[in-house]
Amino acid sequence: MFQAAAKTFSVAPTASVCRGILSSIRQYCKKTPTKLRVSEALSSAELGTNVKVQGWVRSVRPQKANLFLHVNDGSSLQSLQIVAGSELCDPLLTFGSAVEVTGILKKSPNQKQTVELEADQIHVVGECNPVDFPFKIKERHGLEYIRQFPHLRCRTNAFSSLLRVRSEATTAIHSYFKENGFVQIHTPIITSNDCEGAGELFQVEPSGPEHEEGENFFSVPAFLTVSGQLHLEVMSGAFSRVYTFGPTFRAENSQSRRHLAEFYMVEAEVSFTQSLEDLTKVMEDMFRSATEHVLAHCAEDVALFHKHVTPGHRDTIDAMMKRRFPVITYSEAIDILNRSSQKFTFPTDWGCDLQTEHEKYLVKHCGNIPVFVTDYPYDLKPFYARDNQDHPKHTAAAVDLLVPGVGELCGGSLREERLDLLRARLEEVGLEETYSWYLDLRRFGSVPHGGFGLGFERFLQCILGIDNIKDVTPFPRFSHSCLL
Amino acid sequence: MFQAAAKTFSVAPTASVCRGILSSIRQYCKKTPTKLRVSEALSSAELGTNVKVQGWVRSVRPQKANLFLHVNDGSSLQSLQIVAGSELCDPLLTFGSAVEVTGILKKSPNQKQTVELEADQIHVVGECNPVDFPFKIKERHGLEYIRQFPHLRCRTNAFSSLLRVRSEATTAIHSYFKENGFVQIHTPIITSNDCEGAGELFQVEPSGPEHEEGENFFSVPAFLTVSGQLHLEVMSGAFSRVYTFGPTFRAENSQSRRHLAEFYMVEAEVSFTQSLEDLTKVMEDMFRSATEHVLAHCAEDVALFHKHVTPGHRDTIDAMMKRRFPVITYSEAIDILNRSSQKFTFPTDWGCDLQTEHEKYLVKHCGNIPVFVTDYPYDLKPFYARDNQDHPKHTAAAVDLLVPGVGELCGGSLREERLDLLRARLEEVGLEETYSWYLDLRRFGSVPHGGFGLGFERFLQCILGIDNIKDVTPFPRFSHSCLL
Repeated sequence: MFQAAAKTFSVAPTASVCRGILSSIRQYCKKTPTKLRVSEALSSAELGTNVKVQGWVRSVRPQKANLFLHVNDGSSLQSLQIVAGSELCDPLLTFGSAVEVTGILKKSPNQKQTVELEADQIHVVGECNPVDFPFKIKERHGLEYIRQFPHLRCRTNAFSSLLRVRSEATTAIHSYFKENGFVQIHTPIITSNDCEGAGELFQVEPSGPEHEEGENFFSVPAFLTVSGQLHLEVMSGAFSRVYTFGPTFRAENSQSRRHLAEFYMVEAEVSFTQSLEDLTKVMEDMFRSATEHVLAHCAEDVALFHKHVTPGHRDTIDAMMKRRFPVITYSEAIDILNRSSQKFTFPTDWGCDLQTEHEKYLVKHCGNIPVFVTDYPYDLKPFYARDNQDHPKHTAAAVDLLVPGVGELCGGSLREERLDLLRARLEEVGLEETYSWYLDLRRFGSVPHGGFGLGFERFLQCILGIDNIKDVTPFPRFSHSCLL
Repeated sequence: MFQAAAKTFSVAPTASVCRGILSSIRQYCKKTPTKLRVSEALSSAELGTNVKVQGWVRSVRPQKANLFLHVNDGSSLQSLQIVAGSELCDPLLTFGSAVEVTGILKKSPNQKQTVELEADQIHVVGECNPVDFPFKIKERHGLEYIRQFPHLRCRTNAFSSLLRVRSEATTAIHSYFKENGFVQIHTPIITSNDCEGAGELFQVEPSGPEHEEGENFFSVPAFLTVSGQLHLEVMSGAFSRVYTFGPTFRAENSQSRRHLAEFYMVEAEVSFTQSLEDLTKVMEDMFRSATEHVLAHCAEDVALFHKHVTPGHRDTIDAMMKRRFPVITYSEAIDILNRSSQKFTFPTDWGCDLQTEHEKYLVKHCGNIPVFVTDYPYDLKPFYARDNQDHPKHTAAAVDLLVPGVGELCGGSLREERLDLLRARLEEVGLEETYSWYLDLRRFGSVPHGGFGLGFERFLQCILGIDNIKDVTPFPRFSHSCLL
């Protein structure tokens, strides 16, 4: 409209014409509503402005004189209350329908919100038949129920909160590493390393008939990564501090609450380490920093879980954040387990791996806060773990972080940087040739270094108190299930 | 030492003893050098302080009275110059060896750096035999040469610069979306969608003999994702603005400079769009924002490529950043190609897909800056592209962004949000049942929306002027090659 008005002049306009244009502009500006997201509208101080809000209807309450709607656009858990005259009532205004509302932002008389939108126009953009839509107005659907609808569950309060928390936690982790001088590396998803997680690997080949049986696309068998560690170690020899944050895979035939076939790992490597403390410091700092960030930036979303899903969990979190995480050795852990009156299913002899039941007991024993367990039996750890060269109980400089509710959240170790020791161990297991490139890292400018991995889904479970790992990932993949 | 001093008192200490402890603490603090990264040392204003620096030797120059070293730890392209008395000379101080140096930070008399470290101790942490090490002191190795050593090439100037740029560009892209209210979604890597890129998919199954032939781990055939778009569309129905940034895969049997089997894509979806302009705005803003961020935060690293690898490229970049990106329709593009005097290998009739040669010509024609091409023939585009319902030349609301040197950098479209049109098209191709979940998104609160994908490696090639895509990714995967 403004453009059209301006176009009509090809010669210099007179003063009165100018005034006319200015008045048109004013009129135009007044009429064009400012497009706001719901979160912006809710926190807007500019009451009295003409705004447009777009989103999905979360509640409809037609009353005699007025119509009340709640509209949500995913920018926050809270919806915006719309108040309209009953003449704007429309049978298509159903739970789940998409709308565009224009009107004036006003101070709300309702104590639950500070602002509401007095609508002068409501346009139904996309209908939603309430009979077919699997979620019903005013019903609180359980996490298990909504899991059946992977393409729609993000439209529920609980799962949209989860996804906002997941996004913010991702930001928090990247920020922590960036602020601490780490370079982010995209470690490869497809890899020809096949030794570490033998038996639980996914193999990758082109699909379709044109792919000849027996001939590998990459000339060698190729697998989905189980860890970016070895590739990060390559990079730690140039950047001192590196991290990766991406998907990893296990072909575990498990449908448990604890395992996914595809999950996210945060992995970091630090060069010039002196002891395991250099790692536990990074692990604890990162955990605290990410948790604090999420609690601060997603307060409403986190509160939804702490209120409706796991009452009391907020106290656990607050207790965690107040104290430094204790550090015990594996040997001390074994002593604690053996002194306990609890009967365990799995053995607790020195040399046995800690099981989830043991991890959960140790966490409780240490005051229900995260606890580091260090210096595991040498024979339990992979070839790259640094030999402590102690005896008679031979250990490696490895560390796990156990957390309430979840058990193992992080695992890490100093890496064997001494060429002779590493070569001897690789020879023992017949892998010297396969890992000759890895030995090269020790041949050329080797430095003491170490690193760890954190299971990102478990981190979310831990801070939100969510029991099932399938409820913290947008599209869970596990044996017999790959929906969408 | 401080701990030991404190431990010796089991009764209240006298004043003189306190003074003694304080003096020990002062002594101790003075002697303990501050650990600095090379980038911190280079920008440090605290000359005269006692510092410790750890890194790898990049040059060694023994002179009569003095020894000059350059030490790099990956925190910046620039190394720190170390000056030491010749008595600290050591035959193990070779190119590539790892060292720990303590000394005093001083103003440098050399004009090339502001600061140097006057060493009082140099400790060789890890040796590096210069005969075996594939990179030689003072030699500038080509990108093709260093590509042969995927586990060591990050130790060269060029590739460490590249990886710092890649890390910083990743940060820039996340920041852009975060600042603009987008929620980050981890779209799945493994998917059961098999229709879109048929023929170029990687299939995924557990490896090993225990996996029975014919039985799928996920009960259905599963593939590596070629795009997170459909999953993002799920999310755009709840959050209005979403994005994903992760690996995608093509089993293309190509060893070209332009293709990888594993590459990174940035994909975004925006709800409540009115026209393609809503998308081109996000595409252009993101491109500018990320480019500006990289130029500002990695000036030194970018300059290395612009100076040694593609002289003159900086001018191209500066020209790009000065002008808005022009928008032409596909039909206009075809007219431009047909009016050109250049002979093309591929046909330029209306209805034919644009090839790289055409894309590069169009970019040149528009002033060697990025150009948007919109409204492609309907029949060239996938089922989800929004029908423009025009005739006789039937087009879809799709858009590509073509950039200098690379050709297609982004591709996007408005998505068909109208249930009847989408269903009709899916019926035509016999996919109505397979995509019934996708149709659900249009059944329940459908809104006009659209999105696009950007090839991240191509973005890096574009801003750095790097010809071969294998040189912008840490561990390139392509047919017949999956090193490490």
